[in-house]
Amino acid sequence: MTSDTPVFDSSDSVRSAVPLKYVQYVTFQEPLALEEGGGLPIVRVAYETYGRLSPAADNAVLVCHALSGDSHVARHDAEDTAGWWELVVGPGKAIDTDHYFVICPNLLGGCRGTTGPNSINPETGRSYGADFPVITVRDMVNVQKLLVEHLGIRRLRAVAGGSLGGQLALTWATQLPAMVAGTIALATSPRLTSQAMAFDVVGRNAILRDPAYQDGQYYGNGPGPTVGLSIARMLGHITYLSREAMIEKFDAHRLQPRQVQTQFETRFSVGSYLAYQGDKFVERFDANSYLTLTMAIDLFDLGDSREELRSALSSSQCRWLLMSFSTDWLFPPFQSEKMVNALIAEGKPVSYCSVKSNCGHDAFLLADELPIYGEAMRAFLANLDSSAPADDTLTDVALDELSCQDPTSIFHSRRLDYDSIIELIPPGASVLDLGCGNGGLLARLRRNGCPNIIGIELDEKAILACVRRGLDVVQGDLDHGLSAFADGQFDFVVLSQTLQAVMDVKGVLKEILRVGRQGIISFPNIGYWKLRKHLSEEGRAPRAGSLLGYYWYNSPNVRFLSIADFEDFCRGNKIKIHQQIALDTEAGCKVFDDPNLNADMAIVVISQ
Amino acid sequence: MTSDTPVFDSSDSVRSAVPLKYVQYVTFQEPLALEEGGGLPIVRVAYETYGRLSPAADNAVLVCHALSGDSHVARHDAEDTAGWWELVVGPGKAIDTDHYFVICPNLLGGCRGTTGPNSINPETGRSYGADFPVITVRDMVNVQKLLVEHLGIRRLRAVAGGSLGGQLALTWATQLPAMVAGTIALATSPRLTSQAMAFDVVGRNAILRDPAYQDGQYYGNGPGPTVGLSIARMLGHITYLSREAMIEKFDAHRLQPRQVQTQFETRFSVGSYLAYQGDKFVERFDANSYLTLTMAIDLFDLGDSREELRSALSSSQCRWLLMSFSTDWLFPPFQSEKMVNALIAEGKPVSYCSVKSNCGHDAFLLADELPIYGEAMRAFLANLDSSAPADDTLTDVALDELSCQDPTSIFHSRRLDYDSIIELIPPGASVLDLGCGNGGLLARLRRNGCPNIIGIELDEKAILACVRRGLDVVQGDLDHGLSAFADGQFDFVVLSQTLQAVMDVKGVLKEILRVGRQGIISFPNIGYWKLRKHLSEEGRAPRAGSLLGYYWYNSPNVRFLSIADFEDFCRGNKIKIHQQIALDTEAGCKVFDDPNLNADMAIVVISQ
Repeated sequence: MTSDTPVFDSSDSVRSAVPLKYVQYVTFQEPLALEEGGGLPIVRVAYETYGRLSPAADNAVLVCHALSGDSHVARHDAEDTAGWWELVVGPGKAIDTDHYFVICPNLLGGCRGTTGPNSINPETGRSYGADFPVITVRDMVNVQKLLVEHLGIRRLRAVAGGSLGGQLALTWATQLPAMVAGTIALATSPRLTSQAMAFDVVGRNAILRDPAYQDGQYYGNGPGPTVGLSIARMLGHITYLSREAMIEKFDAHRLQPRQVQTQFETRFSVGSYLAYQGDKFVERFDANSYLTLTMAIDLFDLGDSREELRSALSSSQCRWLLMSFSTDWLFPPFQSEKMVNALIAEGKPVSYCSVKSNCGHDAFLLADELPIYGEAMRAFLANLDSSAPADDTLTDVALDELSCQDPTSIFHSRRLDYDSIIELIPPGASVLDLGCGNGGLLARLRRNGCPNIIGIELDEKAILACVRRGLDVVQGDLDHGLSAFADGQFDFVVLSQTLQAVMDVKGVLKEILRVGRQGIISFPNIGYWKLRKHLSEEGRAPRAGSLLGYYWYNSPNVRFLSIADFEDFCRGNKIKIHQQIALDTEAGCKVFDDPNLNADMAIVVISQ
Repeated sequence: MTSDTPVFDSSDSVRSAVPLKYVQYVTFQEPLALEEGGGLPIVRVAYETYGRLSPAADNAVLVCHALSGDSHVARHDAEDTAGWWELVVGPGKAIDTDHYFVICPNLLGGCRGTTGPNSINPETGRSYGADFPVITVRDMVNVQKLLVEHLGIRRLRAVAGGSLGGQLALTWATQLPAMVAGTIALATSPRLTSQAMAFDVVGRNAILRDPAYQDGQYYGNGPGPTVGLSIARMLGHITYLSREAMIEKFDAHRLQPRQVQTQFETRFSVGSYLAYQGDKFVERFDANSYLTLTMAIDLFDLGDSREELRSALSSSQCRWLLMSFSTDWLFPPFQSEKMVNALIAEGKPVSYCSVKSNCGHDAFLLADELPIYGEAMRAFLANLDSSAPADDTLTDVALDELSCQDPTSIFHSRRLDYDSIIELIPPGASVLDLGCGNGGLLARLRRNGCPNIIGIELDEKAILACVRRGLDVVQGDLDHGLSAFADGQFDFVVLSQTLQAVMDVKGVLKEILRVGRQGIISFPNIGYWKLRKHLSEEGRAPRAGSLLGYYWYNSPNVRFLSIADFEDFCRGNKIKIHQQIALDTEAGCKVFDDPNLNADMAIVVISQ
C-alpha cells in the first residue's frame, strides 16, 4: 500500500455510477446456448471503447473486468469519473489508448448493462431473478466474441484481465486461440483453491438465506437481500487484502472506528471499514449477479495436475504474460506457477513474474506495484507483433555492463564467457539460460538466429528488463528444480557463472541434463595459481579483486571448485564432458597449458 | 492431516452432548465486577476434574478451552464420550491424569453450564440474552481463580490452552503470577491481527442482522438466529483450516459433495462440509455466547510493540512453553515470536517452537503434530518443579554423540571443542548458545553451575530434545538476527561450529557482540596444512573426511576461513580478540606452534 492510500479507498468502489453517455449497447438476437445447459433467447452487451481501431483492425485490446467491475475501465475525458483500472488504461499508460483500441464490456451475468439476472426475460416479460441460468466463463467469452466480431475485429492484439478477468483471458487464449495474439492474465488461477471457493460459498449462503432474498424475485419488492449481500461483500474485502495490508491499514488505531452510518457493528476500525464497504456495495450491485458471477468463478476449472493443465493450455497460439502477487492468498502465486510450468512444457512463449507486494489480491488494481506489473504489460504489448523488439538497441558492451551488475557476476565490464558460449551454440538451437539476468546472453543468441530461447531469473527488475527486450523469461529459483521443463526440451541449457551460488549442485546438474541435450556450465576456477597462493603461502581463503570478487564473509557464492574438481564430479556421476574452454579473464585470452593452474574460469560442455 | 482423517471429522464437533454426570457446579454468590464496567450478581461455574489432587495440592493443571469448547476435555471412563482434547489429556497422555489433577471449567460467557447469556439474570428472572454484559478474558480468568481457590489450590502446576484458551493462559501468567508455575500457550497471540478480527466482525454481523436474532431475546421464541450462527461457524471453519489442509480434504473431489440434509448450498464438496458444520453447530451452541466470546477474543490485547509486550509480560513468574503452527494463519507464528522475544528480553525462562504443520490453526487439536507439541508439553510439565531435570541422565559421551548427528557437525563422536569452551566459562555466567542442537553444551554448562542459559535452534526435534532436558530453547534462524535479546544480556554468546553455515557473517557477529559481553566462536580452519595441500598440490578444493567432512558440491557449509582470515576480519571490524585456542582434533590435542598451519579448528573469544 502506498502510505497515502486513504483507509476507505478501494479502487473498485470510490467512483460514482457510470455516466451513461459513454456506454454503448449492442443486442444479439440469436439465442445463446450455454455450457451448463439451457440458453438465453437474446443477449445485450454494454461496453465502452477507448482510442481508435487501426485501419487493419489489428490494435484492439480487450480488457476483462473482475467480479464487481463493469465497462467503465477508465475515464473518457477530463470531466469523466475515474474507471476501475484508471491507473493502467489511458493515453500514455501501460495499456496506451494512444496506440491501442481498448474494448471493455460488462460481463454476461453482470448488472451494469449487459444481460444478467436483473434483465427482462423476453419469454416471461419480467426479470430473470433466480431463474437466470447458470453461466460459465466460457459463456461470458462467447458473448465477448460476438461483440469483438461486431466491432470488425478478427484478431485481438491482446486480452487482459485480473482475477475473474484473468479467467476470461485464459479462456480466450485456449478457446479461441486464432483470435488472440497476446494474453495478459494477472492475479488469477486455473481454478480456485478450496479455501477461495469456501469464501464464495459462505457469501452465497448469506444471500440465499436472507429472508429479503425472496427466492430471488425481489425486484420492485423491497430493497432485496441487502444484509446477505453486505455480508458477502465484507467477506470478499477480507480476501482482497493481505494480512499485512490489513495490519497496516487498521492496526495502529484498531479501537478508533471511523464514523459511518450503518446498522453493522462498528466497535473496531476494521469493522467500520467492512460495514462501509458492505453498505456501499448494495447500492450499486445486484445480489443475483453476485450469485451468478461467483458461481461462474467457482465452476471455472482448467485442471490442477500438470497433465490437465498442459492439455488445457496446449491449444493456445498466443504469447503469454502471467503475473501473480506475493501476498495474494485468494489467487496464490503457486497456482500461476502451475500454469506457467504447463505452458513451458508445451513450448509456449511465456513470461512470468510473482511480483513482491504487500497489497494482496488487490495489488493488480493499485499503484504500489504498477512500476513492475504495468511496465511489464506495456513492454509485452509493444513487443507482441514486432519480430525485432523495440528495446533491443543496446550494444553488446552495454548489455554486458548491465549483466555485470548482477550480484554474482565476476566481471568488471565485459562478459568474456558469453563470447565463448555463443561460439558453442549453432544458429537455430533451442536454449534455456538459467539465471539469465537482464537477458544479455539471450539477446545475443536471438540475434544469432536462435528463436526458441527462454530464461529463468529470480530478480523482478531483471525479469522486467528481459520482457522489455521481448525475451521470454520466467521467475524461478534454480534450487527448486526445473520441473517446468519436459525431458530433452532444449538443445542447450546454459548455467553461466551461477554454479557457485547453487546449494543443490547435484540436483541442478541432473535437471540440466534432463531438460537439455547438452549443458554449458561456466564457473570460476579455485585451482587458479593466484588463488592457490592465497591459501598455501598466505594461509588465507582464496579471493581476488576481479575473480570471485568477494571476501569469505560477504560472498553470495557458496561453492568453490576447481576445474579438476568438476572433472572428478562428472566422472563420479557419469556425466560426459564434450568440450572445455579455459579462460584467463584478466589477460582476456584462452588458456591451453594446464588450465586447472592457469585459467581463472572454465566453460564446460556436458551431457548424460 | 493424517490421511485417515474423515472429511467430516473435526475434533470439537464429533462428540455428542456432554454427559451431565461428570460435570460439577459451584456457584459464587459474591457479585463479580467486570473489566469493561458493570458486573454479574452471581456466577455459576460448570467444570470437570480428572486425576487426584495431591496432598500438597501442587499437581493441578488448569486446562482452558477455546471458543466452542466446554468442560469436557476428555473422557472420564471407557463408557464416556470423547472430549475436545482427548488426544492430550488422560492417563499416560501428554497431560497425564495419573500424575496431575486436571481442571477444565466452562468459560464465563459460555453456554455449557457456566454463567452466560442463556443463564437467568437473577435481577429480572429471565435470560440475560443481549443484556449479558461485555466480558473480557481477564473476567474469565477471575472466575477461574474463584474456582481454583474453591478447590483448595494456591498455586497451579500449569495453565494450558490453545487459541482463546491460550489467551487465558497468557492472562493467568501475567495477572496472577504467584499462582502459576508453568504456562503452556498454543496457537495463540498477544492480540488478534486485523484480519482475524475481521472474520469475527463478519460472523457477529451475520448473527446480529439475522431477523431471528430478535435483539437477542430469542430464548423460548423460535430457533433463534440459526442462519446467522451457521454463517459465522462456516466462516470460522475456513479460518481453522490451512489452505493446504483444505486442498487435501476437498480438492480431489471438489464437485462431489457429501449428501447432507441442509438448507445451505451443497454444489461443491467444501460447501457440503461447511453446511454440515454450520447446521451442527447451531444444535449445540448459543448465538449470544458466540457474540460474547468472540468479542472477548477481539478485545484481548497485550500490545503489539516490543515495549508493550515486555511491559505486559514482565510480571510473570512462571516458566513458559509457547508453540505455534506453521500454517496457522488465524494466530500466525510471528505473533507468538513477538511474545517470545519480549519474554527473552525480560529474562523470563521460555521455550518456543513453531511446529511445522499442514493443519492450520486446528493443529493443536489434531493428532498429526502431537509427537512434537504433546511431547513438548509432557516434558515441560515433568521438568517444571524439579531442579534436576528428569531426562538429564545421559553421559557427556552420549550427549556428544547426539550432537555429532547435527548436519553441520565436523565431529565423529566427541565434541572436543566443548571441553575447551567449558573451560572458558566460569560457573554462574549467563550463556546464550547459538545453534545449540540437542543441548549438549547447555546441559554441561548447567551441571557446571550456570543457571541462566538459553539456546537457539532451528530443528524442532533438537528443540524437543532440549525441552526434555529442561533446557530453555527457542526456535530461530541466526541469519535473521538476535533481535529478541537485549544489549549485554549475556556474559557469553557461543557460536560453536556454526559460523561456516552462516550467510550474514558480519551481521551475526555484530549481534553476538551486542547481546553478549564476550563471544566464543569455534570454526574449522581452512589454513590447516592438509587442506592447503589439497589446493596447492592437487588443485582440488580443500576437503577432508573428518574435517569439513563434505565435498564442494554437497556441503551445508558456505563459508571457508582460516584463523588468519578471522583475525583479519576482527582487526577490520574493531573486534577485540581475548583468547584463542587451537586444536588438532584428529590428534585430540591443543596446538601452540603456528596454529593457522597446524590446527584444524579454532576457538576464539572476542568482544567489542
